[in-house]
Amino acid sequence: MTVRIGVIGTGAIGQEHIQRLSKKLVGSQVVAINDINETAAKTAVNRIGIDAQFYANAHDLIKASDVDAIVVTSWGPTHEEFVLASIAAGKPVFCEKPLAVTAAGCKKIVDAEIKHGKRLVQVGFMRPFDSTYRQLKSALDNDEIGQPLLLNCKHFNPEVGDSYTTDMAIVDTLIHELDVLRWLLDDDYTSARVIYPRKTSKASSHLMDPQIVILETKKGIVINTEIFVNCQYGYDIQCEVVGETGIASLPEPTQVPFRKGGNLQRAILVDWKKRFIDAYDVELQAFINNIVTGNFTEGASAWDGYAAAVAADACVKAQQTGNVEAIVMPATPSFYKK
Amino acid sequence: MTVRIGVIGTGAIGQEHIQRLSKKLVGSQVVAINDINETAAKTAVNRIGIDAQFYANAHDLIKASDVDAIVVTSWGPTHEEFVLASIAAGKPVFCEKPLAVTAAGCKKIVDAEIKHGKRLVQVGFMRPFDSTYRQLKSALDNDEIGQPLLLNCKHFNPEVGDSYTTDMAIVDTLIHELDVLRWLLDDDYTSARVIYPRKTSKASSHLMDPQIVILETKKGIVINTEIFVNCQYGYDIQCEVVGETGIASLPEPTQVPFRKGGNLQRAILVDWKKRFIDAYDVELQAFINNIVTGNFTEGASAWDGYAAAVAADACVKAQQTGNVEAIVMPATPSFYKK
Amino acid sequence: MTVRIGVIGTGAIGQEHIQRLSKKLVGSQVVAINDINETAAKTAVNRIGIDAQFYANAHDLIKASDVDAIVVTSWGPTHEEFVLASIAAGKPVFCEKPLAVTAAGCKKIVDAEIKHGKRLVQVGFMRPFDSTYRQLKSALDNDEIGQPLLLNCKHFNPEVGDSYTTDMAIVDTLIHELDVLRWLLDDDYTSARVIYPRKTSKASSHLMDPQIVILETKKGIVINTEIFVNCQYGYDIQCEVVGETGIASLPEPTQVPFRKGGNLQRAILVDWKKRFIDAYDVELQAFINNIVTGNFTEGASAWDGYAAAVAADACVKAQQTGNVEAIVMPATPSFYKK
Amino acid sequence: MTVRIGVIGTGAIGQEHIQRLSKKLVGSQVVAINDINETAAKTAVNRIGIDAQFYANAHDLIKASDVDAIVVTSWGPTHEEFVLASIAAGKPVFCEKPLAVTAAGCKKIVDAEIKHGKRLVQVGFMRPFDSTYRQLKSALDNDEIGQPLLLNCKHFNPEVGDSYTTDMAIVDTLIHELDVLRWLLDDDYTSARVIYPRKTSKASSHLMDPQIVILETKKGIVINTEIFVNCQYGYDIQCEVVGETGIASLPEPTQVPFRKGGNLQRAILVDWKKRFIDAYDVELQAFINNIVTGNFTEGASAWDGYAAAVAADACVKAQQTGNVEAIVMPATPSFYKK
Repeated sequence: MTVRIGVIGTGAIGQEHIQRLSKKLVGSQVVAINDINETAAKTAVNRIGIDAQFYANAHDLIKASDVDAIVVTSWGPTHEEFVLASIAAGKPVFCEKPLAVTAAGCKKIVDAEIKHGKRLVQVGFMRPFDSTYRQLKSALDNDEIGQPLLLNCKHFNPEVGDSYTTDMAIVDTLIHELDVLRWLLDDDYTSARVIYPRKTSKASSHLMDPQIVILETKKGIVINTEIFVNCQYGYDIQCEVVGETGIASLPEPTQVPFRKGGNLQRAILVDWKKRFIDAYDVELQAFINNIVTGNFTEGASAWDGYAAAVAADACVKAQQTGNVEAIVMPATPSFYKK
Repeated sequence: MTVRIGVIGTGAIGQEHIQRLSKKLVGSQVVAINDINETAAKTAVNRIGIDAQFYANAHDLIKASDVDAIVVTSWGPTHEEFVLASIAAGKPVFCEKPLAVTAAGCKKIVDAEIKHGKRLVQVGFMRPFDSTYRQLKSALDNDEIGQPLLLNCKHFNPEVGDSYTTDMAIVDTLIHELDVLRWLLDDDYTSARVIYPRKTSKASSHLMDPQIVILETKKGIVINTEIFVNCQYGYDIQCEVVGETGIASLPEPTQVPFRKGGNLQRAILVDWKKRFIDAYDVELQAFINNIVTGNFTEGASAWDGYAAAVAADACVKAQQTGNVEAIVMPATPSFYKK
Repeated sequence: MTVRIGVIGTGAIGQEHIQRLSKKLVGSQVVAINDINETAAKTAVNRIGIDAQFYANAHDLIKASDVDAIVVTSWGPTHEEFVLASIAAGKPVFCEKPLAVTAAGCKKIVDAEIKHGKRLVQVGFMRPFDSTYRQLKSALDNDEIGQPLLLNCKHFNPEVGDSYTTDMAIVDTLIHELDVLRWLLDDDYTSARVIYPRKTSKASSHLMDPQIVILETKKGIVINTEIFVNCQYGYDIQCEVVGETGIASLPEPTQVPFRKGGNLQRAILVDWKKRFIDAYDVELQAFINNIVTGNFTEGASAWDGYAAAVAADACVKAQQTGNVEAIVMPATPSFYKK
Repeated sequence: MTVRIGVIGTGAIGQEHIQRLSKKLVGSQVVAINDINETAAKTAVNRIGIDAQFYANAHDLIKASDVDAIVVTSWGPTHEEFVLASIAAGKPVFCEKPLAVTAAGCKKIVDAEIKHGKRLVQVGFMRPFDSTYRQLKSALDNDEIGQPLLLNCKHFNPEVGDSYTTDMAIVDTLIHELDVLRWLLDDDYTSARVIYPRKTSKASSHLMDPQIVILETKKGIVINTEIFVNCQYGYDIQCEVVGETGIASLPEPTQVPFRKGGNLQRAILVDWKKRFIDAYDVELQAFINNIVTGNFTEGASAWDGYAAAVAADACVKAQQTGNVEAIVMPATPSFYKK
């Protein structure tokens, strides 16, 4: 069985996903595309070397009889509309983050999916598909360090442009930790607070950088996350879990160890695109497998997308108030239990 | 285009390759199988869930009109015959190591392929497809440490059974280094000598273990390789290259770093199957891609298989004589130049 | 010149210092001892093999004409009295931590010393004499990572007895970080808050463990320190400094790297006594050198002891209130500027 | 008791030892000096700030009634004469390496010392006093990896001057491994061979660099040692011991780990003087303690100096012949058993 896919939005990430779904993964074929720029879209699929029907209107693509499933990689504010339309059409849909730009929008999707009665939505959070995070989760699940008590995470970028604003540290950057840590710990957040350390001289005048976000969870775990988007030295994702009997850490990406120039050294990635590139393959393959088996057991659900949005809202509020802000999430509906 | 593949030999490695070619890789389908045990063969493909024609005779499979390419995973001594038959049939063939059990047999295949006029043969040496060896080769090719001068390698297994004999340290174990180091250094061996250190008390009485094999190359590089197949602690593959300006080493497989029980530690693999499991996927995908593009640019050629056999013969002789034994390889024919 | 020393308090640490001052360091001699247990004191010096006069009254020892300098290693609550008496006698005094059990007591010593007009007091904070902390400080002072912005520290013990109470995490444990981080950063604290993560099941019912103490400094640096005194796995002191252009960390104590039993591993200390044992030698030698040169340039001053006490008071308050508690330290008097 | 020492030879290493013996170590005092350059010698001791009698003739210094022990740091070819004279005077003598420039010279000293009937000679091999080698030896002695089977060692220098010749790789460089590995393994060498890998372009035309020396021992251990004196990247001393159940390695010198400039890195020493500087202190303190206790239990004996010379002779011969050269050492006399 080959899953016939329609892709909405053929920008950079859209094109990468088309490439994956056409050339690298098993069981999928891109048969339809939509974009606001028809010429660019057609050029892109030609370059990739596939034959896909162009739709000027995304809703026509969603409804097309030869399209089995939808991939939404358009501009963020359009996600909600297209995901809801896909659910209405009863078709599986993979939506790049964010699922919706507001928690309310995410909730609307959750409600629609529950009403539909069967899971259809996978959200594009790729970190749980990354092999190093999976190794770390296995360590926790195998009780290698006892119950987790506290975490120390880093999300460091070498630098950002002037358009990057203080709240983007949450909604664009921390959002990945907000997703992956729920999955890692099988837990939900209860509060967030933000502390601003001494500001780096490398950041724009309008940007607080670095920032520390401290989250607490239902199990009482405290998560200390540092966001530092002008750290200069590299793209560095760290996650250390302190448990009752030991510490487990996210493995570093594999690099050649050198002895040269007076140093024992190995490279830290600078380009973020390389860090999780393999995870995107696994993530999209999981989407196809979910469709083929008829069972959405892998990947972030609409509920996960909603949970990330609720947590992000509280973190942004905490950025502004300086207070401990509550994160109020209802219990996971049985519909979404794994 | 889907490459239709016939697999000769459906033992453990054969079944793994059938699984890969059917379920994991892009562009291939297993349509035919042969084995000396018909029942076991049929059971295996049923379990994998594919529909493949059973051939009682391997030569019928090779000639079958719906078989585009052959994968040989039968008993070693049969390889030569089936590879030669595949060449005679003008069909691409992937042959697990060894290409033939003698250097003369390998040479016969080389001659047949050259006579055929187009490359058809890929030998199942998987290490050049391993991502850590590729990172190391990139480092050398990017001149990170200048010209390589000497290497230190380890091929350690936790333990072997009583049937493992001293010469198997060369033909079963070192054979992988003999292949991958030629590729890594883009060089050929000129001599080998073997030194037996103090013997471990963990080895059978008939087995010399560990052994040190010292190879020299045309470029003058000296390679010190330790084979230790009862090292107890793990399956450990190491490769360190000392260059004119620095040292580069094979990265360790990714593992979670722990602090626990009075140690800062991370696991060393014990099961060899896990070490290069991803490399098998890349290797077989390269075989399919070679067929699709009509150009055997990737993977070990028949010439590489021949070179490994010639070097192994010299190493075995060196085991017996204690002398420096010459390794005489003609220059690579242009037919095999990459 | 040999400095003749009188030691007040000949318990465990007192005996170790007597041993050092008599047998290991250059330029000192223990000539007088005092303890509440005369027999034990005399036995101790006999065992060490020195000839020292026993004084039943510490004040007599302080005033003795053949005693050039005092070392106070008696019970904490007595420190203030003996240090003040030493200053009154115009004699250099090395006092184990705490300088006094209250900040007010420390302040009294500061005032007395300033009034005396010349520095006489060194407080027994040994970490700034530890070679790994010194390497880290050199890295910062050499501008290897730009201005420090935030720190992550750990003070982990394998386990503590039932008598260890929640406030001891500050006054007995964190007190070392409170001293060494001021020195490392050349900065003063402005606030403290305490967060209690999920409690380990390994701690006594009355003990909050682990604890997170977050300090802020005049320069705006945020310090995240984890205290975990039942971490099970070892005695682990960590200090990571995130600067504007990189991260520098406290080196791990030197240990043999092993490959054994399926792990790549090296030991983490379990016994805290071994971690800073060399630092004690350097610290006491500095005391002797300070006396010989007549210039107290090295080691913690009475002011440093006072600063640690003020910070500890705020941390204990923060443990109780859950609030951000201000740490109010006057500017360092020029008398104590280094 | 203070040991009064006379130092013969006040060049660089002589001055360093005078400094140590006068200012840093316990129980010694330099009271006499001799050098071929009187002015320089006097200037040196003035700078160090001690009052020592200058002797124009070394033999007068050796015989001086207020000199308890001799330290020989003069030009290598003079060592034998001064050590023999010290033995004749019945005085303890510390002699920098080499003990004598020929094995025969070393043997003469051994014979004289045995005839004297009591150990007096300590040779200046400092590596057994280095804390990292001691940690490695402890690991072996504690049976952490079972019986040692083979070793891989490196002695790398960043660069050498034009006056450095191929044989100096043995007599100046490898000599330290020849000493420390006998001590580490409690074993004696039986043979040596030398292999010359591809030569680095960074070496003088007359120098073979790098070189591999392969030693075998009475226990059958094979030692692979690489000497590379123009390795460019640092002063790097490595020692890896493969045992029956695991591998133990010499710890790296402690350095701050950094994340900076796209690398995870820590420094490798470039200046060899820093690598074993602490070991010199321990070594000389052991000499003083040996004298005080009247029992030469620590440090390299004249026999050890002789053994290193015999092994070095065989290695130099192996450099020239390309053959496996026997190293013939008589059993250690009971006089020298530890």
